[in-house]
Amino acid sequence: MGKRIFNFNPGPAALPLPVLEQVREEFLDYKGTGMSITEISHRSKQFEECLNQAVERTKRLLKIGDDFHVFFVQGGATLQFCMVPMNLAIQGKPVDYINTGTWSTNAIKEAKLLGKDVRVIASSEDKNFSYIPKGFQVDKDAAYLHFTSNNTIKGTQWAEFPKTGDVPLVGDMSSDFLSRPFEVKPFGLIYAGAQKNIGPSGSAMVIIRKDMLERGSPNLPTMLRYTTFTANNSLYNTPACFVIYVVSLVLKWLEETIGGLEKMERINKEKGKMLYDFMDRSNFYRGTAAKDSRSLMNLTFRLPSEELENKFVSEASKAGLGGLKGHRSVGGCRASLYNAVGIDAVKALVEFMADYQKRNG
Amino acid sequence: MGKRIFNFNPGPAALPLPVLEQVREEFLDYKGTGMSITEISHRSKQFEECLNQAVERTKRLLKIGDDFHVFFVQGGATLQFCMVPMNLAIQGKPVDYINTGTWSTNAIKEAKLLGKDVRVIASSEDKNFSYIPKGFQVDKDAAYLHFTSNNTIKGTQWAEFPKTGDVPLVGDMSSDFLSRPFEVKPFGLIYAGAQKNIGPSGSAMVIIRKDMLERGSPNLPTMLRYTTFTANNSLYNTPACFVIYVVSLVLKWLEETIGGLEKMERINKEKGKMLYDFMDRSNFYRGTAAKDSRSLMNLTFRLPSEELENKFVSEASKAGLGGLKGHRSVGGCRASLYNAVGIDAVKALVEFMADYQKRNG
Repeated sequence: MGKRIFNFNPGPAALPLPVLEQVREEFLDYKGTGMSITEISHRSKQFEECLNQAVERTKRLLKIGDDFHVFFVQGGATLQFCMVPMNLAIQGKPVDYINTGTWSTNAIKEAKLLGKDVRVIASSEDKNFSYIPKGFQVDKDAAYLHFTSNNTIKGTQWAEFPKTGDVPLVGDMSSDFLSRPFEVKPFGLIYAGAQKNIGPSGSAMVIIRKDMLERGSPNLPTMLRYTTFTANNSLYNTPACFVIYVVSLVLKWLEETIGGLEKMERINKEKGKMLYDFMDRSNFYRGTAAKDSRSLMNLTFRLPSEELENKFVSEASKAGLGGLKGHRSVGGCRASLYNAVGIDAVKALVEFMADYQKRNG
Repeated sequence: MGKRIFNFNPGPAALPLPVLEQVREEFLDYKGTGMSITEISHRSKQFEECLNQAVERTKRLLKIGDDFHVFFVQGGATLQFCMVPMNLAIQGKPVDYINTGTWSTNAIKEAKLLGKDVRVIASSEDKNFSYIPKGFQVDKDAAYLHFTSNNTIKGTQWAEFPKTGDVPLVGDMSSDFLSRPFEVKPFGLIYAGAQKNIGPSGSAMVIIRKDMLERGSPNLPTMLRYTTFTANNSLYNTPACFVIYVVSLVLKWLEETIGGLEKMERINKEKGKMLYDFMDRSNFYRGTAAKDSRSLMNLTFRLPSEELENKFVSEASKAGLGGLKGHRSVGGCRASLYNAVGIDAVKALVEFMADYQKRNG
């Protein structure tokens, strides 16, 4: 095996090394079945154990009870952009959205395509989505309020979630799910593509408050109805078994090795502080997000010129620091510090950045 | 590592051992990237190579040219049950279906849910779906004719596909895709869940004739529109990367180790003949499908009593022959002999069956 790099990819992203090692170790014979995890039935007790463990660990980590369902849907967060309004809109009521970047914009687009009465009640588009809106009014008539908890491309993150009273909050948490504790109670629905913090690509995890299930029409296509998934424990059809299996291992690592969300948050804060403090002391690297809106997951920054940025990404890659290129839609640089990215990786990055500045500043 | 069993699972199913070994071998460091295949970007050249290889090999294996698109969609064949009528129905024209079992029935249900003018032009429901209908009339006014090429649960398979003239054929080929050569030209669309013959669960492969793309409305949700996938080479959003990677390895095995679809078919016929011939000579095992409709992929059979069936499945499992239980909806026994199930496995099964009969017949 070659040397593993420090992986700052925005997603698919780094996974905990002990998880990868376990997958490899048991790949040809899963728990004495004589089959690979990719070859066993989704209705076998071995697979159902993976699935149930993933669900139970999520519930324990987030301290949620039986008033919520946790399940897996293929199609990533992007399919949820249409499933949310299909299932949660209410005839005669508007659906409200906050626009904080590309993913919010796409979610809004899908709700409009479905002909819903969509209102954008707050947006940071005026400043290129570089901040999280404040001081907006939540309308108690809305069927739900949708927001994106962390913006992978622009490097912003909600420090505190919107207060909505009785209006159910709907959160796209793809890129900071399970990176910190939060109160689930105000949420009608949470969804997260697995490929940032909890596993490989190929599935979203969805958490729904049970009363929200009453909204979906039975005339929706079966695979686009949340009740199909909740009534069948994610097993109406064959799910993305390998993804769910790896998610169950990642959540075990998060719960047992890291020690839960409070500890995970402490580590993530330490990692973020290390890199932001360094940038702020530097006159070479410049963070692109407003300071009070900075993401601990995706840290976006610019260098004095595009030429220096390209050279930075390329030299970093040669030095074993991968995935530092900004999203193709905005350019610049980005370090994604998801749960599985260790403090050692951030230290190595800061050292490289200091050295690069010395040589090019 | 423990002993690998002979795996007759109906799906998720056996994968070629050399493929599993390669996945394990390179799992912590994919081609010198220093990352797992599960950790690299879906837009990296390494992943795009997997994806493009899977597409190119499919095109070569099926001898299809640039008048067809090959792409991957999450949600399995079950999501295709609604995507097909959403995208391929034509206002004012009926959509025609042939009903040969559970999966056809579900496909019909979804088209009806969408309010399409659905006609079932042939069915084998009168004899519990134990045969493939013949002598039905294809109506040239239909927008398409949908059929299921192999029926996993009932153990039937179309030996020759329906002749439809100018009506585009739509085939759910989940359980016999790439098990034999066939002419793709009459098809408007083919779909197949990966987890039978070509990979792990978590994605369907879809093949569409380019002129069919003109039918879909631009008002469909983005993730439910075929053009979203064809225009972005399956990369509009993050696809099921691990599944596609394994599919690319399975297709490499099929093309280079097996030697293509003619050779695969020869092997599959030999496997099927071995087991059916044994059953037909036996007065203990009884095939459930009509002889002219028998599947080479899923061989369904009964024993003299349910008690003997349960004991058979349980003793076979202890003897290292797994997955022989019939589908929970029909009972009995079933041996799935997909591409990756070797002749050695079928020999072992026949030997076990002979011995079991001797002890219990």
